[in-house]
Amino acid sequence: MNQRLEKLQTWMRENEIDVSFLTSSENVFYLSGYYTNPHERLLALVVFQEKEPFLVCPGMEIHDAKRSGWDHEIIGYSDTENPWELVQQSIHKRNNKLSKAAIEKEHMNVERFEQLSGLFPSASFVSAEEKLRLLRMIKNEKELKIIEEACALADYAVEFGCSEIKEGKTELDVLNALEYALKQKGVTEMSFATMVLTGANAASPHGNPGQTRIQKGDLVLFDLGVVVDRYCSDITRTVAFGDINDKQKEIYDTVLKSQLAAIEASMPGNTAAEVDITARKIISEAGYGEYFPHRLGHGLGISVHEYPSMTSTNPLVLEEGMVYTIEPGIYVPDVAGVRIEDDVFITKDGAKVLTKFPKELQIIK
Amino acid sequence: MNQRLEKLQTWMRENEIDVSFLTSSENVFYLSGYYTNPHERLLALVVFQEKEPFLVCPGMEIHDAKRSGWDHEIIGYSDTENPWELVQQSIHKRNNKLSKAAIEKEHMNVERFEQLSGLFPSASFVSAEEKLRLLRMIKNEKELKIIEEACALADYAVEFGCSEIKEGKTELDVLNALEYALKQKGVTEMSFATMVLTGANAASPHGNPGQTRIQKGDLVLFDLGVVVDRYCSDITRTVAFGDINDKQKEIYDTVLKSQLAAIEASMPGNTAAEVDITARKIISEAGYGEYFPHRLGHGLGISVHEYPSMTSTNPLVLEEGMVYTIEPGIYVPDVAGVRIEDDVFITKDGAKVLTKFPKELQIIK
Repeated sequence: MNQRLEKLQTWMRENEIDVSFLTSSENVFYLSGYYTNPHERLLALVVFQEKEPFLVCPGMEIHDAKRSGWDHEIIGYSDTENPWELVQQSIHKRNNKLSKAAIEKEHMNVERFEQLSGLFPSASFVSAEEKLRLLRMIKNEKELKIIEEACALADYAVEFGCSEIKEGKTELDVLNALEYALKQKGVTEMSFATMVLTGANAASPHGNPGQTRIQKGDLVLFDLGVVVDRYCSDITRTVAFGDINDKQKEIYDTVLKSQLAAIEASMPGNTAAEVDITARKIISEAGYGEYFPHRLGHGLGISVHEYPSMTSTNPLVLEEGMVYTIEPGIYVPDVAGVRIEDDVFITKDGAKVLTKFPKELQIIK
Repeated sequence: MNQRLEKLQTWMRENEIDVSFLTSSENVFYLSGYYTNPHERLLALVVFQEKEPFLVCPGMEIHDAKRSGWDHEIIGYSDTENPWELVQQSIHKRNNKLSKAAIEKEHMNVERFEQLSGLFPSASFVSAEEKLRLLRMIKNEKELKIIEEACALADYAVEFGCSEIKEGKTELDVLNALEYALKQKGVTEMSFATMVLTGANAASPHGNPGQTRIQKGDLVLFDLGVVVDRYCSDITRTVAFGDINDKQKEIYDTVLKSQLAAIEASMPGNTAAEVDITARKIISEAGYGEYFPHRLGHGLGISVHEYPSMTSTNPLVLEEGMVYTIEPGIYVPDVAGVRIEDDVFITKDGAKVLTKFPKELQIIK
């Protein structure tokens, strides 16, 4: 049994949970090593306190699931079979009396819940999500290495994007060119929809990339991430196209100072709230508090938003192995929009910064 | 009240459903005209038999929802408000005693269902999905025009892709180039992950585009679709790179004959099954029955897979206004993989073919 499954089983014993029935691609991957997007078909990892876990997947995927390293039972089903009957039989073989089951309540739909609870009418159902968020929050060396690779590609994308900034080009021109460059490096998936925003669009909290042309004197904001081996990176850089005015510079410098302070404060033992507040205070003291309307950052891993949530009210104590973003921003409508975002890994000595594109203001001529 | 909502209300009265609580972006868009991807936030369209419907969305989207043409009530909520309390109040204002509610059981998750059913503990919950699938199955003129536009872009993509086929290029080279060309035409979303498969990959039912290089004598298969104004197109063409052998030609001709026969059989009054069987018979009689392992096609619209499902067992009678794909294929491992797919619109005189890239075997020199 792998360590992740063992930790889940310990939690199940402590909470008298007889079975965990996990269905999201992300959590199944985290615990089994097998990733698939089953679309409308059923995928499930079924875990018991002691007995052997099993994986349920479409029959044509059994071979892939085995190859991925899952060495426990796999229940495959064809499109004409009812997977729920197979699930019921396989659970009953291991445990005849289920009184408490953990499911992903934010993932499982009502139709499936009716199937599952129909099979075990006397069971109560609790949520498995919080526990999995906490498990996934602490990354190991192998995960760190993959995220570093994803960060290096994100750095490259920003660098390439900067080289595409020219008078008359639109946001979408630059965006499409940088994504094409990534694809030529073998990237097949972005962490989220890439943002390239210029001028007033960057200064709006709901800007979307479009046909706006980049002009001299604009700040251009890149926010993007790359998926490598199912793990996400996430970087934001704001660069100047030609000379910018003093107000824009002041805003840039304030965000950078705030961002560096938050990296400094990212020590094991500090809380998430302390880090957010450290950054927020610098922006507030510079008079821009109301223009920083979002949390400082978010955890990063198999999902682009996971734990820890870096908010001003989160009492969570930082620990070695956490990976999260630090991304303060100031958005003053029609004046300037600046955000600077790094991904960091927490070590016993503090934050290791994984994204490396320069943060001194880059002026594109 | 728009006609779509009126049809839903008629169904609600016939089935004594007091409220429909609809949550998928697709169905909310179909009934309200407002499209959004709310990510983890709540989006809902709440419809009553007689009383005014209302829309629930994140507060920052109210303006967009109004601009989209929705002229009934909109309930916006901030990230610190509990949207369920607002939902409860707004429903109670209209109907004090709910005994039966329709929800999207395949879309709503357990966590939300617990919230909703907690608000109305004596209500029973039925599924709204089947009714919405039937409503969405029949397209009007406006929908047809949009799908035609999406089909024209799909035609262009295949044409561009063919021009990129050259000795030594990989599947991903061609795929990335054609998607980049679409982006330069303003396309921002594909209907599904584009397929460009060559040689043995095209002949495997589970091929994925990769680093395989295209070689003379290969059949190259394109399967792709473009989203325009939220509607999808879906086309498949198989072309030859240089001269192909007699077996490959025979397979191509068989698929084409089958595909043309299915178009011919696509008349109002015939059943979906009859159309599938017409196509399947030609392939079986040519000795390739076992190599055509999937249904003939699927409905197409806001979703890339919707009703009608074109299977050999679906007794559904075809009607004017349906849009579906006709996509027979033959996949003989290590010999050839051929699929030819059009999107058709059913008129009183039969099928109007919306995808227009040539189907006579194209030989790329």
